[in-house]
Amino acid sequence: MISAKSLVVALVAVVFCGASFAQGPTDTTFARDSVQIRQVFDEVLMHAQAHENLRHLCKEIGHRLSGSKSAQQAMDWGLDVLRDHGADTTYIMPVEVPSWTRGSVADAHAILPNGQDMALHITALGGSDPTPAGETIEGPLLVVRHLDALDTLDATGHIVLFNRAMDPLLINTGAAYGGAYDQRGNGAVAAAKAGAVGVLVRSLTHALDTLPHTGSMRYAEDVSRIPAAALSTVDASALSKAYAQARERDQTVVVRMRMDCADLGKVMQGNVIGEWRGSTHPNEIITLGGHLDSWDIGEGAHDDGSGVVHTLEALRALRAIGYTPHRTLRFVLFINEENGNRGGKKYAEMAASEHEAGLRHVAAMESDAGGFVPRGVRMDGPDLQVAMVRSWAPTLEPYNLHYFGRGGAGVDIGPLKTLEPRPLLVGLVPDGQRYFDLHHSSQDVWENVHKRELELGAATCATMLMLLDQHLPSPSN
Amino acid sequence: MISAKSLVVALVAVVFCGASFAQGPTDTTFARDSVQIRQVFDEVLMHAQAHENLRHLCKEIGHRLSGSKSAQQAMDWGLDVLRDHGADTTYIMPVEVPSWTRGSVADAHAILPNGQDMALHITALGGSDPTPAGETIEGPLLVVRHLDALDTLDATGHIVLFNRAMDPLLINTGAAYGGAYDQRGNGAVAAAKAGAVGVLVRSLTHALDTLPHTGSMRYAEDVSRIPAAALSTVDASALSKAYAQARERDQTVVVRMRMDCADLGKVMQGNVIGEWRGSTHPNEIITLGGHLDSWDIGEGAHDDGSGVVHTLEALRALRAIGYTPHRTLRFVLFINEENGNRGGKKYAEMAASEHEAGLRHVAAMESDAGGFVPRGVRMDGPDLQVAMVRSWAPTLEPYNLHYFGRGGAGVDIGPLKTLEPRPLLVGLVPDGQRYFDLHHSSQDVWENVHKRELELGAATCATMLMLLDQHLPSPSN
Repeated sequence: MISAKSLVVALVAVVFCGASFAQGPTDTTFARDSVQIRQVFDEVLMHAQAHENLRHLCKEIGHRLSGSKSAQQAMDWGLDVLRDHGADTTYIMPVEVPSWTRGSVADAHAILPNGQDMALHITALGGSDPTPAGETIEGPLLVVRHLDALDTLDATGHIVLFNRAMDPLLINTGAAYGGAYDQRGNGAVAAAKAGAVGVLVRSLTHALDTLPHTGSMRYAEDVSRIPAAALSTVDASALSKAYAQARERDQTVVVRMRMDCADLGKVMQGNVIGEWRGSTHPNEIITLGGHLDSWDIGEGAHDDGSGVVHTLEALRALRAIGYTPHRTLRFVLFINEENGNRGGKKYAEMAASEHEAGLRHVAAMESDAGGFVPRGVRMDGPDLQVAMVRSWAPTLEPYNLHYFGRGGAGVDIGPLKTLEPRPLLVGLVPDGQRYFDLHHSSQDVWENVHKRELELGAATCATMLMLLDQHLPSPSN
Repeated sequence: MISAKSLVVALVAVVFCGASFAQGPTDTTFARDSVQIRQVFDEVLMHAQAHENLRHLCKEIGHRLSGSKSAQQAMDWGLDVLRDHGADTTYIMPVEVPSWTRGSVADAHAILPNGQDMALHITALGGSDPTPAGETIEGPLLVVRHLDALDTLDATGHIVLFNRAMDPLLINTGAAYGGAYDQRGNGAVAAAKAGAVGVLVRSLTHALDTLPHTGSMRYAEDVSRIPAAALSTVDASALSKAYAQARERDQTVVVRMRMDCADLGKVMQGNVIGEWRGSTHPNEIITLGGHLDSWDIGEGAHDDGSGVVHTLEALRALRAIGYTPHRTLRFVLFINEENGNRGGKKYAEMAASEHEAGLRHVAAMESDAGGFVPRGVRMDGPDLQVAMVRSWAPTLEPYNLHYFGRGGAGVDIGPLKTLEPRPLLVGLVPDGQRYFDLHHSSQDVWENVHKRELELGAATCATMLMLLDQHLPSPSN
């Protein structure tokens, strides 16, 4: 008779080994994968250049907004490192990108009903127009939490503050960011439609700090382009409180703001690409990438210097362990993720034309969620392929890689979705609890990236690339 | 005919739902657990006092080595907070603990063959004797990597440096710590047996820094008690290099060291305990705890202030959501984990005598691995109960809790293993990549604990306590 205990143990064994039934890696495959994965992690943890590469990118080059001179320097550097790390072909894929400058002034104050002057920590949202002629504008403050609150309010002449905090109850900070993003992306349009002359947006971070966190915003045709700035969370809370107190007494808080940011037109830059030609299926392409551009405050260390050096390190490490790729592996440092995604769109356009020429993009992976300790990957693609990746879980568990969810894999690789047959898109998922503390702020600097966590992320990217190369089925058309 | 795709999807469904087969929570149980877990996380993420409690413990009280006045202050504070957070009984369980003081001097220099003086960053290992009469000792340096290297070496009159780094290839930093620990724990005995007059131990951390990381060491009867100090990793590497260069030329590096630490005898302090009486099975006890004592440098913020405030917060949050425990929940702030574990041993002794009186310890959980983002739990106990906890995985996955391994659950609760029937021991597993950067050093301070990560750990402890209370079977004897 089988004891209850044996039964439980047997069932647990099924559960914990069951993943390998899904796509049928045999014991031999499991063993071979495990050995290769260990080689990758050993190589990276012993010899990684990721941390030093990141130091160079952050400290010698610095932040690198699309269109800037430093973005061009980063492209030149990326090309050199791709060559040095073993790409057998390197090239720039030209992309026309916007050029915008933050200028030298971003100043704001609130004047409280008692005459008190409250200095506000702001910075322009990326792409914002300056205040007219770079002069100070002034208007009564209106605080709202949701865009649609403006549907029924007259904000004529006002400066609007959107003050909805990221939801702390969402475990996934990325989801909390997504849930508050509309204020930054569409706040200027909504406020302008209601008659406002300027807009402040509570910085998208869980951190209570005095740092404004910038990011992209957009204008709409036929809606007036009003200046838009990020306001630190500490200031946003204080200002909102002062506003509520003033309203109780039918008094007004006045905000003055001034910014001299400027649109400088278009510039040709590009995606930086290194290829490692496949040995048996060179016409099938697997892409790994991060984005080279960053916002122009801080150093873009987590966003997305980490993704850049993950990509470079994956190439270096796979070369170092003597790996021979079946498919052509393409290492891509995308341009312009932050304010337009023109690099990602251009790459997908090229992929479509390559398809015509007989090349097949079977998978693409992106690292654009920071250099924190990796948790696993997020996937967007056909059920069968998602199931296959999940079947690798037992070989990845020793590296604390447990997460194999579905979801957006990355902004740069997102446009590849339009290809047919659709490639599997994979996004690295580092732990996200600290990411938005630094994101798009002056604190996203090299010192705030942990060497070993960065390396574990790089090893995870290299591992996934290797497993995708070895196990993904070839497309039938 | 079943398509390959359907088959894969079905098999994956088995794999991902399979955990619930193991111990048979029904759909209803799953739903109820999920709702309760969400309540716990919401309560903690909205209203936690953990971060403020930790600030008080670290900043108002500070470090709190067993036997010290500040340890006594921490006990008084802990008792107050347990009452405030809703314990219906609170008491101190007296424990005799050692009292040792680091003194005011820990000074070391190396004199290189060319006469150069290299200042070394050291601090006494906990429990070390001072240098004789608190005066400077001097001896030629001998560097080894393994204790057994001294079996065949004459170290008479030497000062020995153990310089084996933690293994960077081990993904689990705790395992790397465990693998290097013998140098700190037993280095003084091994060196004294070989005739050495003093010992330096490379700090147990992956960080390359100039901070000595202290920790416990022991002496053996009939082996002379030589002074033992932790040396920063940067110094250990530099000194080891200088030593190798000197040896090549048959030259000697001389080390001078001086420490005035002192053994102050024994003091009565105690474990701080708060109980919440069970409604249906009050004679069955589930313990949750961390240790109140800390090393006497830094603030013991991660080690183990975090475990202390996790424990307090679990009580507060379960009260706040209106939970009614079945068993008696016991919240324990242990004393003397760092240098003797007398609090943990005493607690197990009491548990054994309680057993005689008809009380049953069914489970105990400990948080003593830092305040970083939680990954899951580690378990030590009967197979059936381990399988049961694993069956909860689907309800915990939304909180990024994926790890349900076996292993040591905690030093303080470890002695409960001797009880029969054996209780299930559970240890919180936070991410460990950054832990040893700070561990036992001057950098283990409140500022280096992330509020939200701390809260997620507290919510995990509260959740596990609640699930154990509801689902663990009662012992049959």
